[in-house]
Amino acid sequence: MERPRHQGMAKNTYMRWRLPLICLLWEVAMIVLFGVFVRFGPEADAHWEEEKKEMNLTSDIENDFYFRYPSFQDVHVMIFVGFGFLMTFLKRYGFGAVGFNFLLAAFGIQWALLMQGWFHSFKSGKILIGVENLINADFCVGSVCIAFGAILGKTSPIQLLVMTLFQVTLFAVNEYILLNLLHVKDAGGSMTIHTFGAYFGLTVTRILYRPDLEQSKDKQGSVYHSDLFAMIGTLYLWMYWPSFNSAISDHGDAQHRAAINTYCSLAACVLTTMAFSSMLQKKGKLDMVHIQNATLAGGVAVGTSAEMMLTPYGSLIVGFICGIVSTVGYVYLTPFLESRLHIQDTCGIHNLHAMPGLIGGIVGAITAAAATEDVYGKEG
Amino acid sequence: MERPRHQGMAKNTYMRWRLPLICLLWEVAMIVLFGVFVRFGPEADAHWEEEKKEMNLTSDIENDFYFRYPSFQDVHVMIFVGFGFLMTFLKRYGFGAVGFNFLLAAFGIQWALLMQGWFHSFKSGKILIGVENLINADFCVGSVCIAFGAILGKTSPIQLLVMTLFQVTLFAVNEYILLNLLHVKDAGGSMTIHTFGAYFGLTVTRILYRPDLEQSKDKQGSVYHSDLFAMIGTLYLWMYWPSFNSAISDHGDAQHRAAINTYCSLAACVLTTMAFSSMLQKKGKLDMVHIQNATLAGGVAVGTSAEMMLTPYGSLIVGFICGIVSTVGYVYLTPFLESRLHIQDTCGIHNLHAMPGLIGGIVGAITAAAATEDVYGKEG
Amino acid sequence: MERPRHQGMAKNTYMRWRLPLICLLWEVAMIVLFGVFVRFGPEADAHWEEEKKEMNLTSDIENDFYFRYPSFQDVHVMIFVGFGFLMTFLKRYGFGAVGFNFLLAAFGIQWALLMQGWFHSFKSGKILIGVENLINADFCVGSVCIAFGAILGKTSPIQLLVMTLFQVTLFAVNEYILLNLLHVKDAGGSMTIHTFGAYFGLTVTRILYRPDLEQSKDKQGSVYHSDLFAMIGTLYLWMYWPSFNSAISDHGDAQHRAAINTYCSLAACVLTTMAFSSMLQKKGKLDMVHIQNATLAGGVAVGTSAEMMLTPYGSLIVGFICGIVSTVGYVYLTPFLESRLHIQDTCGIHNLHAMPGLIGGIVGAITAAAATEDVYGKEG
Repeated sequence: MERPRHQGMAKNTYMRWRLPLICLLWEVAMIVLFGVFVRFGPEADAHWEEEKKEMNLTSDIENDFYFRYPSFQDVHVMIFVGFGFLMTFLKRYGFGAVGFNFLLAAFGIQWALLMQGWFHSFKSGKILIGVENLINADFCVGSVCIAFGAILGKTSPIQLLVMTLFQVTLFAVNEYILLNLLHVKDAGGSMTIHTFGAYFGLTVTRILYRPDLEQSKDKQGSVYHSDLFAMIGTLYLWMYWPSFNSAISDHGDAQHRAAINTYCSLAACVLTTMAFSSMLQKKGKLDMVHIQNATLAGGVAVGTSAEMMLTPYGSLIVGFICGIVSTVGYVYLTPFLESRLHIQDTCGIHNLHAMPGLIGGIVGAITAAAATEDVYGKEG
Repeated sequence: MERPRHQGMAKNTYMRWRLPLICLLWEVAMIVLFGVFVRFGPEADAHWEEEKKEMNLTSDIENDFYFRYPSFQDVHVMIFVGFGFLMTFLKRYGFGAVGFNFLLAAFGIQWALLMQGWFHSFKSGKILIGVENLINADFCVGSVCIAFGAILGKTSPIQLLVMTLFQVTLFAVNEYILLNLLHVKDAGGSMTIHTFGAYFGLTVTRILYRPDLEQSKDKQGSVYHSDLFAMIGTLYLWMYWPSFNSAISDHGDAQHRAAINTYCSLAACVLTTMAFSSMLQKKGKLDMVHIQNATLAGGVAVGTSAEMMLTPYGSLIVGFICGIVSTVGYVYLTPFLESRLHIQDTCGIHNLHAMPGLIGGIVGAITAAAATEDVYGKEG
Repeated sequence: MERPRHQGMAKNTYMRWRLPLICLLWEVAMIVLFGVFVRFGPEADAHWEEEKKEMNLTSDIENDFYFRYPSFQDVHVMIFVGFGFLMTFLKRYGFGAVGFNFLLAAFGIQWALLMQGWFHSFKSGKILIGVENLINADFCVGSVCIAFGAILGKTSPIQLLVMTLFQVTLFAVNEYILLNLLHVKDAGGSMTIHTFGAYFGLTVTRILYRPDLEQSKDKQGSVYHSDLFAMIGTLYLWMYWPSFNSAISDHGDAQHRAAINTYCSLAACVLTTMAFSSMLQKKGKLDMVHIQNATLAGGVAVGTSAEMMLTPYGSLIVGFICGIVSTVGYVYLTPFLESRLHIQDTCGIHNLHAMPGLIGGIVGAITAAAATEDVYGKEG
């Protein structure tokens, strides 16, 4: 695997024993903690047959697995292929991006199962897991992948593993505060995943600021084939985002609605991204970085409100605005952040995740406030 | 994004303001029209809880979402990754193919939701959408992607957007005539999607005929890595075609049957494609263009009949024939079309979509005619 | 398509007529045999409406299609994209790997439907197929793809087709003996698919041993872009492995449990693979071949036991061990096999499939032996 360049500590971090020791010790810790705490939830346990009778369910298809597993697999692809390949656009870090993303995500999902389990699925001393926990673990790791985008090419795998440990912990605490104490609804994670992940990553990259990085612009450039690989990442994120936003919504109409809203928002976002990308370039050409990233902002921004009665045209409006905000951010804000605030945002996560995530929170609040009995029905 | 070459109007079409203006104006139009017309269908609406009681449904799993969403996502991948990457085989147009395909599809699905909605889902002044509408919109855009294959490398994004607008409109009218007025059954769209899309594209490429294109053959050549990218497109189309043909079939056995028939037809098609590709080459080598395209003809040709009682061996026969017809078409018909009829068919859509689509219509008619009460049961 | 190098018989095997004749004759044979034997199973047949009434099913969602189709598509992707692209890492065989894999799998699934049908789904003279048969056919072909990994770059397509014919036949016999005569449970196929496929492939590569292959090491090397393509294969195998192991488990909790166990095992495996890969390299760098392959060993090894009450921590332990065993195998065992036993194992399938498959069988036996009424409940 390729080594991260421009790193004073390169020799140390790649010392032969450090990475192996950390990986092995942490994995042993995971096994012990899983052994003490983690068990199958009722719908994955062999006693489900009895459970079914008690709950008067007539068919195995009522198992949560059949409601959520297809969405889970789509989210899984977004985390490992989507985020992994999205970051291959840099000339020198293609394999590193995919490989390190693989490593941090594989570790992160284990730690996330534990952290989120203690906060949300802890019953009589055990964490009971099912497919919904797997999705939530993937979500949590998604926020780490976002943060990774800001520091791409500046860190060793060990630093990434340490960052993952901290970020997952903080994610679970933050999520607990927002969802359980403040009773915020955020099924698609505009705030808990995207805004949180982005600001975490921007903080880390600020700390790791290296003025000499500027000089190596040529290594940061993209090449033709890298761009096609990056488009694989973009498209898988774009296509599966409806699954991301609907994966943990309530069964039935809520999942259905979340998928439709996200589909609409993303479609609108592509058009405004292309429009502003062409408009803000000197020669009217389209900028590949915008197409690879800003087209996704619409999915981020309907995360909170997708399962609400946002309506299809409301989704189009959100997507319309986010395509513009995100593209403008790439053109004007990213250079400003780097030159003035010394924040080197390699993948531009501030434009793709931080701002659209904030917009998503606001849209969610407005949509929730506009909810009336008439719109949601008496049962809703 | 790469600029299309060989184009006299290049300076005009890339004028800084034209693309942005069209994108923004059209997206605003979409928002207004969606605001006036489009609402959630009953199964995506928050009133579904009441609806469920009225219809005596005992479980949320009865929501159409759970019948169709996995197939929808497969179709989605076919449109954006499948068609997008299939067209990357040309040396110079790799990124353009994927990027322009992304743009036209994102616009097309919005316009298709409206056009198809007015014709098929219009109730008391509103278009009520659900997951089936999303699939149909993707289908409609699929026919635009097919047409794009004929003119690849000859058009600007603006021309593509205009073509999308026209083609989607015509698609919906044609579909209405075939399905609603003539009562044709065409769940997998052999005729409505493939034959229609192909002949539309061939008409456009005839109009855009440029004799000097011949001279730039070197730019039309394929390169090694492009071929691997194109195989990603081929394989995703090939693998997910059973979902394409079963996505909007009736619930239950019809969807099941459509998937099996398509699976069989595609498997047979691969073998006859390889056979004829090797046979018709001077040195017996396999031609990559055939493998990337003709192997898919079996999926096109069972589109109409997949949900019928075509039987597995019937599907094998259809696939067997289409692999041959399509490969022979690439070897003999495409050069003939170009030299005699001045139709430059960049991706050979006449061989992959037009002819197999026609065969599909005929097979569908025969299968439907052969249907007896014995085969379909009293209920069927 | 690229020609396999280093082959004395190249001229013969590529004779213009041999490949076409074999493909066409075999496909005709398939059509005849399908015509005589293969029919739709009850859940894919148009009489399902009557069947439903008899079985007192209230909803179409009870059709096996909705339990298994999403998993089937994931398995399909693993066979065609996963195995196909995993083998692109060699400099010269990228397209050959994907293309030949495509050919052998398309033929193999047809023959597997017949062979497995005669053994397992044969009722009153007919093979009745449904989505579960398609999954089993894909599984069977998976074992051929594994064997292909050992002989990659050494065989012509004709030899591959002949190998597929034999291996699928033997697979079905072996599966019948294990599952029906010895009553072994092996839903994820640790033994029937992985161990069997690997030892079959190793036998074939031993027979095809060519001492001069050593000299062409440079052609066996990997290149940068090839490695990114190979990572596509790795990731799709890794992500969809939970679907592979749960695809034919019993409805309900068993499928749910199989997915969770596999998810956990694979996550642990990534960390120990990275640890040992870095530890066993001279400079502590990560070896791409290990990351592309050994990370998958955890999925192989829980194949047998995934649907059992292995528990999440049990899965972590299995993944932990297999990552180590597999990586150590790549470093020490593969060179030993080649130099001493004259077994040239191009992709290292002995490390990825043979050994983890054996471990999987042992783990399955232990888990089954540890099963008590308390763990599985009275119904289980």
